[in-house]
Amino acid sequence: MMDMPELQPGQLLARGVCRHLRHHDFVAVEEFVPDRGLRVDVMALGPKGEIWVVECKSSRADFQSDSKWQGYLEWCDRYFWAVDADFPTELLPQETGLIIADAYDAEILRLGPESKLAAARRKLLTQKFARHAARRLQAYRDPGVSALFGP
Amino acid sequence: MMDMPELQPGQLLARGVCRHLRHHDFVAVEEFVPDRGLRVDVMALGPKGEIWVVECKSSRADFQSDSKWQGYLEWCDRYFWAVDADFPTELLPQETGLIIADAYDAEILRLGPESKLAAARRKLLTQKFARHAARRLQAYRDPGVSALFGP
Repeated sequence: MMDMPELQPGQLLARGVCRHLRHHDFVAVEEFVPDRGLRVDVMALGPKGEIWVVECKSSRADFQSDSKWQGYLEWCDRYFWAVDADFPTELLPQETGLIIADAYDAEILRLGPESKLAAARRKLLTQKFARHAARRLQAYRDPGVSALFGP
Repeated sequence: MMDMPELQPGQLLARGVCRHLRHHDFVAVEEFVPDRGLRVDVMALGPKGEIWVVECKSSRADFQSDSKWQGYLEWCDRYFWAVDADFPTELLPQETGLIIADAYDAEILRLGPESKLAAARRKLLTQKFARHAARRLQAYRDPGVSALFGP
C-alpha cells in the first residue's frame, strides 16, 4: 500500500469538500491539470456531466498569493472557493461560488454563476478526468505499477 | 487504508492486463458496470478516448459458463479475452481480441475487429468511467468517506 502522506491545510479542506460534494452526487479528484501550467485543487464531475472547480484557501496569504485563479474559470461550469470558517470571506470576489469547509465536511454557501463549457472542451476534460482518476486509482490498487510507470 | 483483499485468479489476470495496457497509454478500471445487469472485468480508456473491454478467464470452465459476453460487444470499440498461457485459446471466438496475461504483465496477441461506439454512448461511458474511477479513488485516499457513502 502507498503511504498516506501528512496532509497540508489546503488538502484537508479539499478532503472535506470532496466528501461534501458526494452529497450532491458529484465525484472529485484533487490536483487535476486541466491544461498545461494549470493545476486545480479539486475538479468535480456531476451526475449530468457538470464540471466544477474548487480552489481551497487555507489563509488570507494563500488567497492573496494566487495569481492564476481567473485562468481556471474557462475550465469549468462553476467555480468555487473553499475556505475555513475563520477566513475573511469579504476578500473573495462576489461573482464566484463559496464553500465553507473543514477536514471532515463542507457546506456550499453560494453557487455563483454558471458558465457552461463548450461541448468539445467538456468532452476533453471528462476524458482527462477519467484518465487522471484511473491512473491514481491503479497506483493504490496495484502499488507495483508505480515502479513501472511512476506515480 | 483499506485492506488489500486476496485476489482471485481472474483478478490477477486483470491486474496484469491493466499494467500492460499502460504501455499502450490506456488506463483501466476493474469490475465496471456499463449498464444495468452487466459487469465487465476490465474497462480501458485510451489516449484518444478509445474504449476497450477485456474479460479475464482463468479456466476453460470460467469461459464456458459465461453466457453474457456477447452483450458486452456493444459497449466498447474493441473486445478482448485475457487468458493465461495454458488456456486452450482455440475455444475462443476468432472475431475477438486476445491477450495472454499473468498477474504481472500481459501481451496483446490479436487486436480483433474495431466497432466504433456511437458518440452519445461513448460520451456516457466515458462519464461513467470517470465517476467510477473517482469514487473508488476517493475510498482509498479518504477511508472515512466509505463510512458515509458506502464502498
